Amino acid sequence: MPIDPVPLQCLKGMRILDLSQFEAGPSCTEALAWMGAEVVKVENPKLGDPGRSAVYGSPDKDSHYFLILNANKKSITVDLKSAEGKKVVLDLAAKADVMIENFAPGAIERLGLGWDEVSKINPGLIYAQVKGFGEGSPYEQNLAFDMIAQACGGVMSISGMPDGPPIKPGPTIGDTGTGMLLAISILSAYVEKQRTGKGQRLQVAMQDAMLHYIRIAFSTQARTGKAAGRAGAKTLSGANPPVGIFPCKPGGPNDWVYIYTSRGNPEHWKRLARVIGRPELADDPRYATIEARAEREAEVEELVAGWTRTQTKHDAMRLVGEAGIPAGAVLDTMELTNDETFAERGIMQTMEHPKVGPFKMPAWPVRHGGRPPQVTPSPLLGESTADVLQSWLGFSEADVAKLKAARIVG
Amino acid sequence: MPIDPVPLQCLKGMRILDLSQFEAGPSCTEALAWMGAEVVKVENPKLGDPGRSAVYGSPDKDSHYFLILNANKKSITVDLKSAEGKKVVLDLAAKADVMIENFAPGAIERLGLGWDEVSKINPGLIYAQVKGFGEGSPYEQNLAFDMIAQACGGVMSISGMPDGPPIKPGPTIGDTGTGMLLAISILSAYVEKQRTGKGQRLQVAMQDAMLHYIRIAFSTQARTGKAAGRAGAKTLSGANPPVGIFPCKPGGPNDWVYIYTSRGNPEHWKRLARVIGRPELADDPRYATIEARAEREAEVEELVAGWTRTQTKHDAMRLVGEAGIPAGAVLDTMELTNDETFAERGIMQTMEHPKVGPFKMPAWPVRHGGRPPQVTPSPLLGESTADVLQSWLGFSEADVAKLKAARIVG
Repeated sequence: MPIDPVPLQCLKGMRILDLSQFEAGPSCTEALAWMGAEVVKVENPKLGDPGRSAVYGSPDKDSHYFLILNANKKSITVDLKSAEGKKVVLDLAAKADVMIENFAPGAIERLGLGWDEVSKINPGLIYAQVKGFGEGSPYEQNLAFDMIAQACGGVMSISGMPDGPPIKPGPTIGDTGTGMLLAISILSAYVEKQRTGKGQRLQVAMQDAMLHYIRIAFSTQARTGKAAGRAGAKTLSGANPPVGIFPCKPGGPNDWVYIYTSRGNPEHWKRLARVIGRPELADDPRYATIEARAEREAEVEELVAGWTRTQTKHDAMRLVGEAGIPAGAVLDTMELTNDETFAERGIMQTMEHPKVGPFKMPAWPVRHGGRPPQVTPSPLLGESTADVLQSWLGFSEADVAKLKAARIVG
Repeated sequence: MPIDPVPLQCLKGMRILDLSQFEAGPSCTEALAWMGAEVVKVENPKLGDPGRSAVYGSPDKDSHYFLILNANKKSITVDLKSAEGKKVVLDLAAKADVMIENFAPGAIERLGLGWDEVSKINPGLIYAQVKGFGEGSPYEQNLAFDMIAQACGGVMSISGMPDGPPIKPGPTIGDTGTGMLLAISILSAYVEKQRTGKGQRLQVAMQDAMLHYIRIAFSTQARTGKAAGRAGAKTLSGANPPVGIFPCKPGGPNDWVYIYTSRGNPEHWKRLARVIGRPELADDPRYATIEARAEREAEVEELVAGWTRTQTKHDAMRLVGEAGIPAGAVLDTMELTNDETFAERGIMQTMEHPKVGPFKMPAWPVRHGGRPPQVTPSPLLGESTADVLQSWLGFSEADVAKLKAARIVG
């Protein structure tokens, strides 16, 4: 029985004024939107969030990149360069619980919407900012994107083959990784506001946020006294062979299975010996202990690979997993998309976008009361202008029409 | 002037009963602890959270791995196999806002501490669980660790060199990445509880959580119709050359600089031509447009590399960055640790651990009111038993002594 996603009400009544763009900010507010907050994107009337057209979108059709980062939000367009437009945004800020931006350093202040100004109007406002580098960093004026944060934040230095160059991990940890940490701080500040009525300023730098995701590498360094290195598919902290990815048939680029025999559980190797059809190796002194296997790492791994090459990754995962040994097939995005169990569980949901059409995408993965939050379409540019001006500011239809005619809002 | 970290009060009064171990659960509760929640680890009296001794800790001295994941928490030890011990935990659960666990599938139910039982005692409880695979997945009974989640959740398939095998990114996205998503759901459920008094059950699978961090790869797939591939240090969505890492002197494993000339800003290439001392290339028709550079990608990148090889990564980052082009040196964990600007800004803090000694580690990177939350030491095994039994349950010193004498608590 497929699980019905649920429109979550956790953050019902929480108002978020979202001036952010691309990914680091929008990933943060999308998480809050899935939790039930009212997220209002404030966009420029011309092209809106540059994420709409970036990565192969067009002015007529938002990119999938935009869709996937802006589900469940509203959009209003405002000309921020006009005095009237600025007033509209300040009036909205006065009604908001949270305001968030990730413009280039100094830009929000030049717009007259900096913390000093906005917090005077609304002392209960949680004012959240994402920059590439932190205030006080020698690079605080520099621009950053996801990959710059991954380079400068240590992530690339610990990713790649031991004898190869650094690589940038595929996940956009620099953007979405940062956005998740900011969401945690925003929600915590919101809990405090429920108690005290007070807002606060939150600032996060993408470079700094990367350190949070590589804490284990810092613990490895503390133990070894050396900078953490790169370990290919293996683990940085060193592990008990056999550990790593093993090739499977028919030998495509993602036909690999991860097998992890734990240092903490000597049974794993014994069980694996049976799975690969070599039960006699379980107690063979050449392989029986961690130390023995570590001395013959290549040999031990070839014993396992000799078996995995005769299996598909799915069979290998099933057979090794059923024996109680952690194992996982390397799955690609298409395999994950086509695996119906993700849709049945609500982990993948289909966004029905009025212009782009149906788009199957990953939803928020945490289940609340057994059900994941429901995905609704990302907003068309400015589609919620009248709705938000009326419900937040009490505008009449005529008020909205007047501002629209003057091209202050769209 | 160094910034003083602050003991944050955002989540003051929020009580978290933490039965989780290793990383996925503890990373979640550590974030909540930094925000001011009272996090009480419930550990077995013998060795406690296996993370204490895993990765080269010992019974006498917790590992750095444990320290870095358990800052700002309390610890009590309880013999969960005894009826009295189980009663103590149920009594604590009755007083908690949140209970969290990440045992192997089925284990918490076998302990008699499953959702069905605990929610009856405390309908206001937020009950949070991390597993490797989701309920309803064909693999729901399987064990998982960080690397298994990264293999099965698509992360490895999009990480590595285009012609090489998948690699496991260094960041522990499978663990900490999952923990951050669960923290967002817990906090949202807590906001709802403030309004309604009701708790809820939260469940997240590490495999499912990985899809959230590779959403951009799913958007790329939607555009191309093909599974997202691997791109080394470049971006999956394709980009405007020159983009990527470039080698710097003196040629060590992390002597690279990332340079990103944006598709959206044609000035980036013109500026870069000047920085590399080849201003005439800015308007040279062989390189002037994105299309032209895409046709000569290797040639264009060698032009840039020819210059970066004459620079250190720090100089290259500074010179390219100052010209208004996104750029970042590939920094390793030792360089980040030794860069004093991180300590001055409170992004790195030193934990003064009573047994291990001083340990400089990344703290929570979001600043609240200009200040990051303060790191306090991870707890020694059972050091808070009396404190918690007295403050949560109203035990007298004699009550505690009696339970200790019976080895129910430690």
